Amino acid sequence: METQRIIHTTEWDNVGIVPQRQGLPKGTTVQDGTVLTEDIPMGHKVALADIPQGEAIIRYGETIGYARENIARGEWVDTLKLELPAPPDLREIRPTVKQQHSLPPLEGYTFEGYRNADGSVGTKNILGIATSVQCVAGITQFIEQKIRRELLPRYPNVDEVVALNHSYGCGVAIDAPAAIVPIRTIQHLGQHPNFGDELMVIGLGCEKLRPERLVSDHPEQDKSEQILYLQDERFRGFSEMVDGIMQMADRRLQQLNRRKRETCAAADLVVGMQCGGSDAFSGLTGNPAAGFAADLIVRAGGTVFFSEVTEVRDAAHLLVPRAADPDVGHKLIAELDWYDDYLARGKADRSANPSPGNKRGGLSTVVEKALGSIAKSGTSPIVDVLGPGEKVRRKGLNFVATPASDFVCGTLQLAAGMNLHVFITGRGTPYGLSMVPVIKVSSNSKLSDRWFDLIDLDAGPIAYGTKTIEEMGWELFHMMLEVASGRMQVASDKLGLYNDLTLFNPGPLT
Amino acid sequence: METQRIIHTTEWDNVGIVPQRQGLPKGTTVQDGTVLTEDIPMGHKVALADIPQGEAIIRYGETIGYARENIARGEWVDTLKLELPAPPDLREIRPTVKQQHSLPPLEGYTFEGYRNADGSVGTKNILGIATSVQCVAGITQFIEQKIRRELLPRYPNVDEVVALNHSYGCGVAIDAPAAIVPIRTIQHLGQHPNFGDELMVIGLGCEKLRPERLVSDHPEQDKSEQILYLQDERFRGFSEMVDGIMQMADRRLQQLNRRKRETCAAADLVVGMQCGGSDAFSGLTGNPAAGFAADLIVRAGGTVFFSEVTEVRDAAHLLVPRAADPDVGHKLIAELDWYDDYLARGKADRSANPSPGNKRGGLSTVVEKALGSIAKSGTSPIVDVLGPGEKVRRKGLNFVATPASDFVCGTLQLAAGMNLHVFITGRGTPYGLSMVPVIKVSSNSKLSDRWFDLIDLDAGPIAYGTKTIEEMGWELFHMMLEVASGRMQVASDKLGLYNDLTLFNPGPLT
Ligand SMILES: [Ca+2]
Ligand SMILES: [Ca+2]
Ligand SMILES: [Ca+2]
Ligand SMILES: [Ca+2]
Ligand SMILES: [Ca+2]
Repeated sequence: METQRIIHTTEWDNVGIVPQRQGLPKGTTVQDGTVLTEDIPMGHKVALADIPQGEAIIRYGETIGYARENIARGEWVDTLKLELPAPPDLREIRPTVKQQHSLPPLEGYTFEGYRNADGSVGTKNILGIATSVQCVAGITQFIEQKIRRELLPRYPNVDEVVALNHSYGCGVAIDAPAAIVPIRTIQHLGQHPNFGDELMVIGLGCEKLRPERLVSDHPEQDKSEQILYLQDERFRGFSEMVDGIMQMADRRLQQLNRRKRETCAAADLVVGMQCGGSDAFSGLTGNPAAGFAADLIVRAGGTVFFSEVTEVRDAAHLLVPRAADPDVGHKLIAELDWYDDYLARGKADRSANPSPGNKRGGLSTVVEKALGSIAKSGTSPIVDVLGPGEKVRRKGLNFVATPASDFVCGTLQLAAGMNLHVFITGRGTPYGLSMVPVIKVSSNSKLSDRWFDLIDLDAGPIAYGTKTIEEMGWELFHMMLEVASGRMQVASDKLGLYNDLTLFNPGPLT
Repeated sequence: METQRIIHTTEWDNVGIVPQRQGLPKGTTVQDGTVLTEDIPMGHKVALADIPQGEAIIRYGETIGYARENIARGEWVDTLKLELPAPPDLREIRPTVKQQHSLPPLEGYTFEGYRNADGSVGTKNILGIATSVQCVAGITQFIEQKIRRELLPRYPNVDEVVALNHSYGCGVAIDAPAAIVPIRTIQHLGQHPNFGDELMVIGLGCEKLRPERLVSDHPEQDKSEQILYLQDERFRGFSEMVDGIMQMADRRLQQLNRRKRETCAAADLVVGMQCGGSDAFSGLTGNPAAGFAADLIVRAGGTVFFSEVTEVRDAAHLLVPRAADPDVGHKLIAELDWYDDYLARGKADRSANPSPGNKRGGLSTVVEKALGSIAKSGTSPIVDVLGPGEKVRRKGLNFVATPASDFVCGTLQLAAGMNLHVFITGRGTPYGLSMVPVIKVSSNSKLSDRWFDLIDLDAGPIAYGTKTIEEMGWELFHMMLEVASGRMQVASDKLGLYNDLTLFNPGPLT
């Protein structure tokens, strides 16, 4: 007898999701033998077991609500049958640590990367040009093109030149408490592993953010070799500024050109997970597959970031117990709490409830929606929490507290030290970053068919049942190693499509 | 007998400023016959009349403080001799309108501009490409270059193509009260007179800011001729998106190419005044000369903007009485008050007192410092006040409430409808905007000598006494007409140095 595909992400789930575009009719037998007792639309839930009144409804291995009535195996578990848990109040969450399964280590996986003196590993070899203030942007953009045209061809081991253009540095409340966020972001972007500690800085001279704050403190290194001010009196006119910058770039490129890829353990990967332009399939296909791959990275000793505070906030009570220890739990609560305050100060509605569109798509509760986003983090314990702009300290799964905004989250994950980005989309976005490769995963095959040259991996086959989440997760993991090694080029790098770095500045402009 | 140059900006001033780099020694006779009774350093004040204890010290025609003791003509009026007025409390300012001198009309001055159907006049002929969200930025940047390379050469009457790239549109609290600011800014940027109502919009499809909000409502115009979504299912892959955009651009360019410059009255100029990287000379030379030119524009029936809330705030009590009627005074107080709250919410210090560096430079009081900035507005009544992102409604002198940040202020003045920008700098900045010509005025000759190809006009001769404020003001006025007509190219246009548009978003990211 032919059975139909149904999706559940863990063995503990007592509901499955209907992935078929037309839904499934009453009488259909699904893979585990459950027979549907009514018609169920696409994206909605079917009970895979009898669930007595008051018992937990489990999806993504987590409780998304409680049965309002006895629910029989094969029934449609629609919104009305769920007792909705109240949105979590952060003050009531205790940072208890739940018993965690430990995943077996994964050995023998490597990639070819650029090893740095501080132990970090680059996935590209890039001349980074930091700026202390937007005033210099016109000249920096001019210089970036000139270096690409005139100098890069002479240094075959250098992949690119990237100017860290931003809108901060002056005309800002530099002593306001929140100024720490954009300032440390700019500092840590400059320390990115793909720049090989050969950053150069273009400053103006009278800006509030001093360029000296953007270069690392090496006792043996002369800062004047790395910093140049346009207001320096030695420059007569534009062409002398340009000459001065080109000479500095040439010296840095000579150093960078000595870098060579070498075999590194998968443990040296720092993978940032993000989604954007999500659809009803994101939580079914792309995000769980990314989550499986995240677990593989962690099992191999590597580092994974997940972020997007506003998207995970409603499952805070389920996220906090995943902290590796109570300290991490406290930090997680503190970051979520900071963001609640930040939104409240701006009188923004936290939009706690799923929208009518979400409910039509099958998402019963805000918790279920947040869990779909969290799915891309996998199942590992959270070993550390980074505030926006902070730099990674521990290997393993990290929560990096950032807005969900794609380019802002990407910029903050770069500052945290991400050397490879995985981005899951259902509606489609040409998102790309110049500093690291971005693997774009589509949640459905319709998008990847249409955007054949903009999407790197199609997670749609999970919905059709032609691939499992595990298979797709392994495929993504292998692709990460290929991309990190420079052997496979992602779509955004092939086409040269890059978003701007976008700072998160919660402080005021002046 | 040889007399030395001293600077005062109005006939009512009872102090003059020493402009000589080495200061002036005791015994020097200055231009009005005053003999210095002590050594006075550069930038500091000398009494030009006997000022009895308790009487007003007047600079820029305004009271900057009161004499703490009897001050004799020729004395150094240093900080200690001034009774500092308390920083103005907005709640105590009544919007009374002071008796205002009326400046004689100025007739017969014209420039060659592009007249639009709505009566506005362009100073350049530009294909504008608006974007509803940063997600599309990679493709927009690609397209901008392709249009410049492949299409512009076929349309000789079109000067440029400019993409309005920004970080707004999604991942933002679009319903927060402050969201009105970035949204109307993007809307009004698209209505800029230099775009000739031929704007095209590139959207993604799932963003919060709907692209339809960015095009004007013409009953006869089909919006699908102006808006294109990357997620549109008719596009298969990147190259079809590019083809679609290029076709839309070609149709818009055909329209734009019909535009011709015609003779327009100087009344059609909308001049934005701004300063940045100021020095001790800015308030002596560049800003007063710009102020004189501002009066000429207003006398000719034109429009002048001045801005930079944080820089004028401390002279609020002197600025409000310049309002043309009490309503305008109320609006001015409301905008300054909004900004006070905005800074307080971000826990930013309003830095009310002049810094030690300011005092060494001769600025005795916060009021004096603010008046140096206000000097660039001239002496006309303020006929209207625009909130950040609002569009001009009345000809004459307008206060446009913006941060002082150069690129943010510039972006908001563009949204308000500025078709020509005057930027005064003392320390030097390569500032430029792609949408309108920016005339860069240096406050001192040392800068303009060194930055000979980055500065358009040197106001330094005012300090040397080889030109008066009036002469320099007229020179700037004539330069404005030449630049607005396309007959003279400014430094930033010659070199192609442009800052990024930078939105003011007081609301939170999500
Ligand atoms: Ca997301
Ligand atoms: Ca996102
Ligand atoms: Ca042309
Ligand atoms: Ca200024
Ligand atoms: Ca400014």
